[in-house]
Amino acid sequence: MYSGAQISLYPMADDFVGIILGSIRALDPYRQSLRIEADDLSTLLVGAPEQLFPAMRDLFVAAARSGTHCVLSACVSRGCPGEPDDPRCTPSTDIGAEGPIATRIAAAQARVNAAQATGVSVAAQFSHYPLSHGQYMDEIYGVIDFLKNSGVFGGPKNFCTRLAGDAGPVFSTWSRRSCISARRRRAT
Amino acid sequence: MYSGAQISLYPMADDFVGIILGSIRALDPYRQSLRIEADDLSTLLVGAPEQLFPAMRDLFVAAARSGTHCVLSACVSRGCPGEPDDPRCTPSTDIGAEGPIATRIAAAQARVNAAQATGVSVAAQFSHYPLSHGQYMDEIYGVIDFLKNSGVFGGPKNFCTRLAGDAGPVFSTWSRRSCISARRRRAT
Repeated sequence: MYSGAQISLYPMADDFVGIILGSIRALDPYRQSLRIEADDLSTLLVGAPEQLFPAMRDLFVAAARSGTHCVLSACVSRGCPGEPDDPRCTPSTDIGAEGPIATRIAAAQARVNAAQATGVSVAAQFSHYPLSHGQYMDEIYGVIDFLKNSGVFGGPKNFCTRLAGDAGPVFSTWSRRSCISARRRRAT
Repeated sequence: MYSGAQISLYPMADDFVGIILGSIRALDPYRQSLRIEADDLSTLLVGAPEQLFPAMRDLFVAAARSGTHCVLSACVSRGCPGEPDDPRCTPSTDIGAEGPIATRIAAAQARVNAAQATGVSVAAQFSHYPLSHGQYMDEIYGVIDFLKNSGVFGGPKNFCTRLAGDAGPVFSTWSRRSCISARRRRAT
C-alpha cells in the first residue's frame, strides 16, 4: 500500500533556514529506505510506517534541540488512490494494523510503552480520519480511548486530541496509523 | 451543525510572539459571530463558514503583511460528533453545500470569481477528507477537478493539492467546505 507523509518544520526564528538545513541531516539514515522530496511548502516522505515515524521524530527532535520554539506539522496517509503500490511502503513485520480495534489498541500501547525517551518535551495535537471505514466514528472513538490511556494524553480539544510528554512516546502513539497531526514544542 | 477550525499561525521570526499578538487584532470584527478560544497550540474558531474563512484569511494576511515568512495551518471541520449544535454555526444564507457535486462546484467557482484580491501572494496546499461520504473518492476527485479549474491551481502533490495566487481567491476555494489545509506565504 502506498503510504507516506507531507511534513513541514517551522522554527520560529530569524534563522529558520539555518535551523531547517541543520536538522534535515537527521533524515540521512532514512534516505535508503524512504523516498524524500522537498519543495517550498513541505517535504514528501514515502515509505513504511516503521521508517516514517522515526524519521519524523528524529527530524523534529534535532530541530527542537536547537532551543528554538518550533513546530512540525504532518499530514500522514496510508493509501493514496491513483498511486501504484511501492515496495518500500511494505512493512518488514506485521504492524498490527488489521483485526478488532481492541487488538490494535493493545499493539499500539505496547509500542508506546517500549518507546525510548528523547529528553525533548513536546505538546501536540492529533486528528484521525479513517476514510475507508463505514463506521468511522467507532474508529475515531477507539483512537481517542487509546490516547486517553496511552500515558501521554494531554486533554480533549474540539476536532483533535491533545498529547503531552516526551517526544519518544508521543511520536510512537502515531506510528503505523493513518493520521493528521500538528506538533509544537512547548515554549521554554 | 457544529463547525469550526483549529488554526495556528507560525511567523518564522525571533519576534513571533509580537507578530502573532499584532495580527490577532484582525479577528476583532469576528468576535461577535465566532467563538474564539486560544491555547498554547492553536486557536479554536467556532461558527458559520461565511465568518470562519474570512476570519482566517484576515488573520493570515495581517501577519503576512508584516513581511515575515509565515504559515497558517488550519484543521477545519464541518460537524463534530459529540458536540451539540450551535446556532452561530448556521449560515445566514444557502451556502450551496448540498446537491450534486457539479452544482456545488459551480457555486464554489462563483465564490472564487467574486473574491476580492488582498495584494498578498500565497502558496498553499489542501487536503479534503469527506468522512461521511461512502463514495469518498468521488468527492475528493470532484474537489481536485474544481481546484484544477479554479484559477489558483498550483499543481498536484501526493496527499494534497497545491494552490498559488492571491490570498483572496485562494482562501475562497476552501470556503464552505470541510477541509484540512496548510498555507504558507511565499518566501520574499
